Amino acid sequence: MSDTRDTGKIRLLRQSGAYWRVTIDLPPLNIFGPANIPQLEEVVSSLEKDDQVKAVVFDSAVEGFFLTHYDFLAKPEDSAKFPVGRTGLQALPDMFARISRAPVVSISLIRGRATGVGSELAPASDMRFASREKAMLSQWEVGAGLVPGGGPMARLRGLIGRGSALEVLLGADDINGDLAELYGYVNRSLPDAELDAFVDRLATRIASFDKQAIADTKRLVNINSLPSDAEIAPEWDAFIASVARPAAQARIRTLFELGLHKPGDVETRLGYDVGRLGSTDEASAASGSSR
Amino acid sequence: MSDTRDTGKIRLLRQSGAYWRVTIDLPPLNIFGPANIPQLEEVVSSLEKDDQVKAVVFDSAVEGFFLTHYDFLAKPEDSAKFPVGRTGLQALPDMFARISRAPVVSISLIRGRATGVGSELAPASDMRFASREKAMLSQWEVGAGLVPGGGPMARLRGLIGRGSALEVLLGADDINGDLAELYGYVNRSLPDAELDAFVDRLATRIASFDKQAIADTKRLVNINSLPSDAEIAPEWDAFIASVARPAAQARIRTLFELGLHKPGDVETRLGYDVGRLGSTDEASAASGSSR
Amino acid sequence: MSDTRDTGKIRLLRQSGAYWRVTIDLPPLNIFGPANIPQLEEVVSSLEKDDQVKAVVFDSAVEGFFLTHYDFLAKPEDSAKFPVGRTGLQALPDMFARISRAPVVSISLIRGRATGVGSELAPASDMRFASREKAMLSQWEVGAGLVPGGGPMARLRGLIGRGSALEVLLGADDINGDLAELYGYVNRSLPDAELDAFVDRLATRIASFDKQAIADTKRLVNINSLPSDAEIAPEWDAFIASVARPAAQARIRTLFELGLHKPGDVETRLGYDVGRLGSTDEASAASGSSR
Repeated sequence: MSDTRDTGKIRLLRQSGAYWRVTIDLPPLNIFGPANIPQLEEVVSSLEKDDQVKAVVFDSAVEGFFLTHYDFLAKPEDSAKFPVGRTGLQALPDMFARISRAPVVSISLIRGRATGVGSELAPASDMRFASREKAMLSQWEVGAGLVPGGGPMARLRGLIGRGSALEVLLGADDINGDLAELYGYVNRSLPDAELDAFVDRLATRIASFDKQAIADTKRLVNINSLPSDAEIAPEWDAFIASVARPAAQARIRTLFELGLHKPGDVETRLGYDVGRLGSTDEASAASGSSR
Repeated sequence: MSDTRDTGKIRLLRQSGAYWRVTIDLPPLNIFGPANIPQLEEVVSSLEKDDQVKAVVFDSAVEGFFLTHYDFLAKPEDSAKFPVGRTGLQALPDMFARISRAPVVSISLIRGRATGVGSELAPASDMRFASREKAMLSQWEVGAGLVPGGGPMARLRGLIGRGSALEVLLGADDINGDLAELYGYVNRSLPDAELDAFVDRLATRIASFDKQAIADTKRLVNINSLPSDAEIAPEWDAFIASVARPAAQARIRTLFELGLHKPGDVETRLGYDVGRLGSTDEASAASGSSR
Repeated sequence: MSDTRDTGKIRLLRQSGAYWRVTIDLPPLNIFGPANIPQLEEVVSSLEKDDQVKAVVFDSAVEGFFLTHYDFLAKPEDSAKFPVGRTGLQALPDMFARISRAPVVSISLIRGRATGVGSELAPASDMRFASREKAMLSQWEVGAGLVPGGGPMARLRGLIGRGSALEVLLGADDINGDLAELYGYVNRSLPDAELDAFVDRLATRIASFDKQAIADTKRLVNINSLPSDAEIAPEWDAFIASVARPAAQARIRTLFELGLHKPGDVETRLGYDVGRLGSTDEASAASGSSR
């Protein structure tokens, strides 16, 4: 398989001045890499500055994947070269925080896997609608010895509550459309055949409303419903520290041996595979004792 | 159709010293106007001061409507004459804030439309039970170019979470009983035939408990689960500013042409109609462009 | 029936160094008494200090009961002898607060009644899974004239939202597995036959992950998702004050006459029975008046 990481991009389509689509088109797996940071930055800046846009839909052009984890094959210097963003946060969490505050309604249309970067973009957008049959949300990081870094601890505790957030983050398993709906992880899961029309109708509807009424109402919801940048910042530091630890290095190495970064089972069922890596760090696992 | 706005009222019935019913009886549409402010104020003051009341149920005597939007035909001077309330908030949000803090359990029994004033009273009360077939909740304001003013941004982000709150407020569409239950917008939706008996049983039960145990427990729940008055206050200012804008004036004018304030389709399916007003403020809507 | 309160205990079983089970085995009713405070304290201290444990499951060995109310037959001096805990809170809320913060994932496996102490332990743990057929959660206290004391007002408003928390606490009724799932009171309710395997699989999975990734991620979720000790403290004081009031004394006396503390209807359907104690404190209950 050839390396297709540079052939795709994040595409912005203006269906109208008021209704934009941002389509993630990074075949074959929608892995997010350093090349995509300036692309997403351009989208976010446009959403902040444009005086006509009212609704934006994030979706995917790649079968099976909404948006998945960060590119582990990228050269470290390529990822480290980006300055901190306007919020003072690192480039990736900076963009997510700005999407949450932009005076435009953002909707994630989730079909396929939303893992890592994808499961951080989704809760940062204003609403989420998922394919009942084809959506799969996942914070896989803890299963790989990592701490998630883009804001999910700060966002999920507010969005889905402490109990569900701890299960999603510490269970590190795949969450399908129905369970995501039950937990409020998505607004609703819809039959796959109805999802596109539903989201298009909602975005078109919102795009017909008055931009100032939208912006003022969203701004008033934002009060006390968004984590502060200071709450998000330590997640990135915890993520960076975790990557360097032997527990994570060993697990990621095994995942690569199993097929990480290639089309196939590991990328499509990451929750399953992190659950069978096994614990390499405890000698006493087999010796149960009772008091 | 004759103007019936002054023939109805908000009625207080003491089923017992401990169990009160507040019935909104403003036929034909349960539109809330300036004449109803002193009526509701009297109810709220009584709930605060009475030393026997433990449970109060808010319901409607009007088929098809729990309580809907404010009276757009009222003389502005009639609405502006009320002093700010005890909390320092305007009369309407003041009463809602006081219901939330009163040492008595308030239950909204929602049958028919709860729109605007109705969808602000409902989240301000302690619990909400809805008719599965006949309840319809709606924050229609953004669809009419308005910003809601009575506290729903501050209340809904806490009650139903940021994602659902943004959908309810920015989608501005009608939410039926089942969806309201899924989002936690009501505690539960029940078959219409069972709703009255369910609520009556619950209110009777609570009315048999000890008032101080109720009041102390509710006071401890209130900590950090109610928005402060300072969070609610800016919503009213944003609402007043929005009413004066051309975008709202044009939309409300069109809604009147379609039948607002009269029995008929617009009042019973407001979510649908605000979605087809169309955008009058963008010339470029038809010109999509791709980068 | 013989007094079996001292024959059972809270048992700690280390299935492995990383996966512990804490089994409440206080037949016949899993009533929690002063003798169990040091047992639970030892468990909590071990969870805090052990450097291998990653997942702990709380479950019950007693048919029909996960963990129910405090022992009303205990000598007051036996309950009062415990010093405040490390957090500065009383012994019981202190242990619950420490479980929530411990660097280990705690899971409540709820089969049978979780009432009082049990319905305070459950929300203090990180996740809750319930038997669809056999779980029953209940904050019965207000129905007995009491104010709950172990933190449920502070915890439930965050976990299940204000509307559901007020219903659970002020309705004081039994909540079955399905309703608990709808309200987010438990993460999920599962068919009883599947519950044990589901929880065991999840705990085994988490126990295979890296302890530092777990601890760091949980610590970041804890920010702003746990009530402060200062929010929890007044609940204990309100509980102690309520116990001494005539309204509570009369209701508890009647419950004892009905069979409290003995196997039988009252202990298995406490929500039902507190609802038929009736109000002894209002002479005017029968005299309805209308204005």
